Amino acid sequence: MTELALEARIRGPVASALLELQDPVRAKLEQVPGEMWRIVKADAPIIAAANAHLRGMKGKMFRPTLLLLASELEETADGRETALAAVAELVHLASVVHDDAVDHSNVRRGQPTINALFSHQIAVIMGDYLYSKALAELVRLGDLEPLRAFTAASNEMTLGEMRQLASYDALSFSEADYWQLIHAKTASLLGAACEVGALCGAPTYRQAMRRYGDQMGMAFQVTDDLLDYTEVESVTGKPSGNDLREHKVTLPLIAALPQMSAVQRSRVNTLFANPTPVDVEIADVVAIVTECGGIDYARQKGQEFAEQADVALEPVPASAARQSLSDALTYVIDRRS
Amino acid sequence: MTELALEARIRGPVASALLELQDPVRAKLEQVPGEMWRIVKADAPIIAAANAHLRGMKGKMFRPTLLLLASELEETADGRETALAAVAELVHLASVVHDDAVDHSNVRRGQPTINALFSHQIAVIMGDYLYSKALAELVRLGDLEPLRAFTAASNEMTLGEMRQLASYDALSFSEADYWQLIHAKTASLLGAACEVGALCGAPTYRQAMRRYGDQMGMAFQVTDDLLDYTEVESVTGKPSGNDLREHKVTLPLIAALPQMSAVQRSRVNTLFANPTPVDVEIADVVAIVTECGGIDYARQKGQEFAEQADVALEPVPASAARQSLSDALTYVIDRRS
Repeated sequence: MTELALEARIRGPVASALLELQDPVRAKLEQVPGEMWRIVKADAPIIAAANAHLRGMKGKMFRPTLLLLASELEETADGRETALAAVAELVHLASVVHDDAVDHSNVRRGQPTINALFSHQIAVIMGDYLYSKALAELVRLGDLEPLRAFTAASNEMTLGEMRQLASYDALSFSEADYWQLIHAKTASLLGAACEVGALCGAPTYRQAMRRYGDQMGMAFQVTDDLLDYTEVESVTGKPSGNDLREHKVTLPLIAALPQMSAVQRSRVNTLFANPTPVDVEIADVVAIVTECGGIDYARQKGQEFAEQADVALEPVPASAARQSLSDALTYVIDRRS
Repeated sequence: MTELALEARIRGPVASALLELQDPVRAKLEQVPGEMWRIVKADAPIIAAANAHLRGMKGKMFRPTLLLLASELEETADGRETALAAVAELVHLASVVHDDAVDHSNVRRGQPTINALFSHQIAVIMGDYLYSKALAELVRLGDLEPLRAFTAASNEMTLGEMRQLASYDALSFSEADYWQLIHAKTASLLGAACEVGALCGAPTYRQAMRRYGDQMGMAFQVTDDLLDYTEVESVTGKPSGNDLREHKVTLPLIAALPQMSAVQRSRVNTLFANPTPVDVEIADVVAIVTECGGIDYARQKGQEFAEQADVALEPVPASAARQSLSDALTYVIDRRS
């Protein structure tokens, strides 16, 4: 059994689904980490140490996967695709490093964050460094179109983050605010990654891929926010409810709020007035949100975005890469982590 | 008396010198703030509030001044120069906002910082926002060369900042380390601003302007670090010694260290072992550094860099802009704030 297949068996069927949909671009995907560390390499021990840690964190490489798949839809990609896939992951990583610094998060996916392991100051500057190196690589590649796509996504990501930091009355956060926020936070970069992939091998489908990535990104984030309400943790046997704990308002709660009785609503208000909500309060609000249809509504919306993304794929001719992009939609809404 | 002339009279002869050297590009320089706020404008109240504050801070606009002067050395500039001058100032502002966030500084040039007025979190993301907007403007202008110059400077600035954060034994900081650091922190962006100016109106002198800006930037930072040892504050009547207070090792101290007696050296060591040095300790080390020739050495080095910058100007034909660039060297090493 190969290492990857073994990993899939340990992580279960959905992780295995991610591995399968990477099949058409496996060889190139395996070159992406090497490209990433080539781009951010510097003759400074602190950079080497931070890079080594980030390297060990190994994300799902979802953005590189999508970019590489989009680059294979027409003919052979033009050779820039692994470097551009590395840039997509670095732009994502830069935003993750700053998000963790801003939130003072110590752990991400079971690994210590840069701010926990080094310092908050180093996390701020390391995020700047990763982003500026990614941009310099785009300049080196010498084509303005990927620069346009990635800088537009970065603008939207930072604007979204600013809006989120500035909002003070969590429970007045509307569904429209939520769509704007998750487009900025998640869909903009996934859309850019898919568009840039098309730019290096399937220019006919540039707009289609942009739309696919946008809609898929919306489905991805809606599902992420749902998991906080639905996915039972191995230790506690209960949903984590971390978003509620941090007073983060996402779609399930937004959809449920207007359906609540006065008593239910007052229990939500109490949780949001408590700076450190306890587990039983959180479990209670999770139950209220579920009862008031918030989970069903969010699941439905995630499904609709995935369908819109599938519509965007319609003009694309059949190929292994196209099949993977279609399968990615199932993965995105069915995944459990 | 115009407002600017009045301001010069209040601020004294060196501020007046800065105003005078801006004369050949005055009209364009006055358009730069408008360009800056066009570039970073967004439909979000928090961005408007942060922008209004940054707008009120009004720096010396030194980078835009140099870029505009460099754009006037051959023939009429090509029309991009005010937007590019705005980008130079935004890249500088983004780094200032992150530096203040990282240092938890509450005041800069008598004004509250973004982190003091809003929050540390907003300062981190606002810095990202300013930088990503500046980059997007470069992409909009559609020329890879200014992108190359500014991203290279940003890479160097962030790398320099990372190195500085990672250094733990302040007193082992060598003169070579110092040159590398101030090139990264200051000279790289001044060099890029001058190079980009030449790109929009004096392409023959692109390399000369790069070299001029680099060397002038070195003179600028050496003088900045000197002022901390020499400039008497109005309230205390003594040099601020803020760098010593924060255990920041700059050229005057580096040059003085090998000349110290054992007794003098032990007083320096004591100051660096004290997390909160008192004023009398600082005044004492300022006197030791002066006695051991640190001030003279740094002044000499600043002069040498200014001379190198003047050499870089040699091939440039006479013009009002060239004269201002030459005068800027006197301003840089003679200024008192």
